[in-house]
Amino acid sequence: MKLTILGCYSATPRTLNNTTSQVLEINNHMFLIDCGEGTQVQLRRHKIKFNRIKHVFISHLHGDHFFGLVGLISTFRLLTRETDLHIYGPKGIKEVITLQMKLADSWTNYKLIFHELTSTETELIFEDDKVEVHTIPLNHRVYTNGFLFKEKAGERKLDIKAVEAANIDTAYFRKLKQGFDVNNKDGILIDYKKVTKPANKPQSYAFCSDTMYKEDIVPLIKNVDVLYHESTFLEKHAHLGPKTKHSTAIEAAKIAKLANVGTLVLGHYSTRYDSLNAFKEEAQTVFKNVELSEDGKTFEF
Amino acid sequence: MKLTILGCYSATPRTLNNTTSQVLEINNHMFLIDCGEGTQVQLRRHKIKFNRIKHVFISHLHGDHFFGLVGLISTFRLLTRETDLHIYGPKGIKEVITLQMKLADSWTNYKLIFHELTSTETELIFEDDKVEVHTIPLNHRVYTNGFLFKEKAGERKLDIKAVEAANIDTAYFRKLKQGFDVNNKDGILIDYKKVTKPANKPQSYAFCSDTMYKEDIVPLIKNVDVLYHESTFLEKHAHLGPKTKHSTAIEAAKIAKLANVGTLVLGHYSTRYDSLNAFKEEAQTVFKNVELSEDGKTFEF
Repeated sequence: MKLTILGCYSATPRTLNNTTSQVLEINNHMFLIDCGEGTQVQLRRHKIKFNRIKHVFISHLHGDHFFGLVGLISTFRLLTRETDLHIYGPKGIKEVITLQMKLADSWTNYKLIFHELTSTETELIFEDDKVEVHTIPLNHRVYTNGFLFKEKAGERKLDIKAVEAANIDTAYFRKLKQGFDVNNKDGILIDYKKVTKPANKPQSYAFCSDTMYKEDIVPLIKNVDVLYHESTFLEKHAHLGPKTKHSTAIEAAKIAKLANVGTLVLGHYSTRYDSLNAFKEEAQTVFKNVELSEDGKTFEF
Repeated sequence: MKLTILGCYSATPRTLNNTTSQVLEINNHMFLIDCGEGTQVQLRRHKIKFNRIKHVFISHLHGDHFFGLVGLISTFRLLTRETDLHIYGPKGIKEVITLQMKLADSWTNYKLIFHELTSTETELIFEDDKVEVHTIPLNHRVYTNGFLFKEKAGERKLDIKAVEAANIDTAYFRKLKQGFDVNNKDGILIDYKKVTKPANKPQSYAFCSDTMYKEDIVPLIKNVDVLYHESTFLEKHAHLGPKTKHSTAIEAAKIAKLANVGTLVLGHYSTRYDSLNAFKEEAQTVFKNVELSEDGKTFEF
């Protein structure tokens, strides 16, 4: 699982600060999460192949999370993309994108498939045989969802030497990987555990931005490997949290602790602060395993 | 008159190429012309004060000319701007901007005044006592206008020494500057030309992008000091001009020559070319005084 932070600042793009966007690589998928203005340039800068992006998840329709989407769609068109593009986001996203295409008289030559979200309960919004994506309803000034990306439990792995020694026909390998005992060529029942190894542990990533402190999300993100939780403010501006519906670093850490996550990644920093270290220090008073997102930083989990 | 090129490339923003946007300073106005994605960052990079921008002119609704507008408006809001902002652009621009504000539930605290354009004839769209702005109807794939910025003829300037020597009451200075003869304190009629100097020559700037070769614009831009004319293609791709409704460098130069302009500034280059020199060389086979726009370049005229 690899996470590339394209932008992790709040409010407005600046010369050195990009607004929210990140790419999650998980099980051969490349999911784009949020798409602030300038995301297409950040994708180019970090050499992420446009064609590998087939699914875009937009948390909410504030500009710092989606003003780059129409430009990305438009650039894909100019580059004569043919691959379908799925867009998951709040109701209204289809209207605003298609209105701009209509005004520009520039319809995509590839298929643009909108999945508009309206539910305030968690939903399964994407699923294939390897990965699931669920929404995480958040509490912000407008309708907002976080997203939970979860690998499915994979099959067990063959222990090639043991399988060969046990004289099992290859036709039964799939059954063994699925956890069934099978007969070998001599008619002897073989315990699958003796010729296979456990599957890789499925990994999970939760993206929670923007939101004020919301404990209701804890059951949804329980035990995830990595939690990205917004931390717009430091403690000295904690009073602004409820007003603007954002969180502090300490609140993000409280959620991480309650949910027993592996690693907490902080981001969506207000640009009022000169240094990011205080975000980590404050969060670590509550939860130890904290990482700071930074534009262009890549995490491998 | 000062022109700052924020972006001068066509199609899509890249790491080192910004799409169309420029700032024209003329007679204390700071006019923003077009607003591709990332314009707000370019404005910051070139230290242009946001509050001095009160008028934005959008040529047409292709993304490389206006996808940065909603982000700029939104950033002005976050910076608690109070000054009115006038936006001139094709019909539809109001709907697309206000839809995005509605979806974000983020209305501006300053006044946003849209002037939607629909005419295919030239129109006077802005005027004060110093400057006029007229549209220049262009020929592109969607409804497009260029813009002509013209200083008005100013008043003559007093020749202070001559005025004092002529013993004229200060109450008559305005009349002299306006070109009237006046009586001095001794009752003698004074020729205004003897105590005033000619006014500064009014300057003019025409922005023509995007457009295919269109000779009809020549009378509208006759004798302008500076013409910015798009030159998407070099001669070897001239066949793409009519198809995409863009111009070549030589076509831009032909217009400059027919209109007898002072300086031709080229721009809106296709990113397929490695170097810009050929644009200048080709244009100069037709018209001598050619400048190349480049992102971040400033021209003083």
